Amino acid sequence: MNILYVFAHQEPRSFNSTLKEAAIASLEKEGHSVRLSDLYAMGFKPVLDRTDFMQPKRTDVFNPFMEQMNASKNDTFAPDIMVEMNKVKWADLLVFQFPIYFTSMPAIMKGWIDRIFAPGFAFNPATQNAYDTGLLKGKRAMIVTSTGAEQSWYSREGQHGDIHELLRYITHCTLEFTGLEVLPSHIVFGASKMSEERVKEETSKYVEKLKSFT
Amino acid sequence: MNILYVFAHQEPRSFNSTLKEAAIASLEKEGHSVRLSDLYAMGFKPVLDRTDFMQPKRTDVFNPFMEQMNASKNDTFAPDIMVEMNKVKWADLLVFQFPIYFTSMPAIMKGWIDRIFAPGFAFNPATQNAYDTGLLKGKRAMIVTSTGAEQSWYSREGQHGDIHELLRYITHCTLEFTGLEVLPSHIVFGASKMSEERVKEETSKYVEKLKSFT
Repeated sequence: MNILYVFAHQEPRSFNSTLKEAAIASLEKEGHSVRLSDLYAMGFKPVLDRTDFMQPKRTDVFNPFMEQMNASKNDTFAPDIMVEMNKVKWADLLVFQFPIYFTSMPAIMKGWIDRIFAPGFAFNPATQNAYDTGLLKGKRAMIVTSTGAEQSWYSREGQHGDIHELLRYITHCTLEFTGLEVLPSHIVFGASKMSEERVKEETSKYVEKLKSFT
Repeated sequence: MNILYVFAHQEPRSFNSTLKEAAIASLEKEGHSVRLSDLYAMGFKPVLDRTDFMQPKRTDVFNPFMEQMNASKNDTFAPDIMVEMNKVKWADLLVFQFPIYFTSMPAIMKGWIDRIFAPGFAFNPATQNAYDTGLLKGKRAMIVTSTGAEQSWYSREGQHGDIHELLRYITHCTLEFTGLEVLPSHIVFGASKMSEERVKEETSKYVEKLKSFT
């Protein structure tokens, strides 16, 4: 199976990097092909702007949606976008791993979504391709994340509320919207301070879960 | 009243810019003081990384949370962060205006949150300052946004689901989390194609709503 691993943590010695390294090693050992988009390490540009378009449809007024539709039709996205889109095309499974920042993705990961899941590429309002007919149909996706706060904050009665509801704008309105089949999110709570033992436990738990999906 | 207007649209001739310009003109006419953070125009850096910290606590391993806590304590954030934090301190009301990108904020706006609402400045887990005791208590905030999709997509039974639930990670887990009192979100649906007449209607509707809050 071909797996695109989109990863957002700044520090190679972080818990998130430990999970990522173990996951990739295990997937490759199982015979899968993995391509990694390590967003901070790549210096990924998260801002959707005029420079995303090699041959803009209009130069007087910038309409991001119109430019994305046009670039999808003519394959005229900036090179860094084309590279990521080709990885998406190649992949059977997309893994998105990030630490929770305000019950959501860090900006650099959101920018990957904003720029790569472009209309005309991942969905198409003009032809009504979304959800059941999203353009990435046939592929699967999964969120892997860690929270600083303890799990009790993210229960239905907790101060933040049910984390699955809060992440629904990603799992449903972003991933399912493009036709991706979404696997259960893997969430590690209370990850700001972890003993070495717990890091080991959480790593093997995650690796086993990934195996069950691949 | 002092108002910080955080704005995220690339195009000065967009509908969003029209709303923003009208809002600021009206607020100033009413005697309020407005400061604008026009994120794309400023070239705002949305990525939280090592360069955010002038005197890092550790140079061997990068722990964003720990560095943010340390920089809050010692006022050692990078200058662009300090400028925005000073605007927040000055403001009685924070307005966040952006077009919906995947039922959420564009990356550049998320990056403003990630970097400016730092632990130690906007909330503090160490001293349990969050929600009712969040560090921005006493100030108010409001989301102003526009969607490409029609309102029916965002109803409880719609394909995306209830937009207020989907935005809850912003209104509740981000804004209320820091102690801000959150005003009702102002949402303009189906804004991808608008007649001049509708632009005028929506603009005056928004300006009137803002007046009722200020």
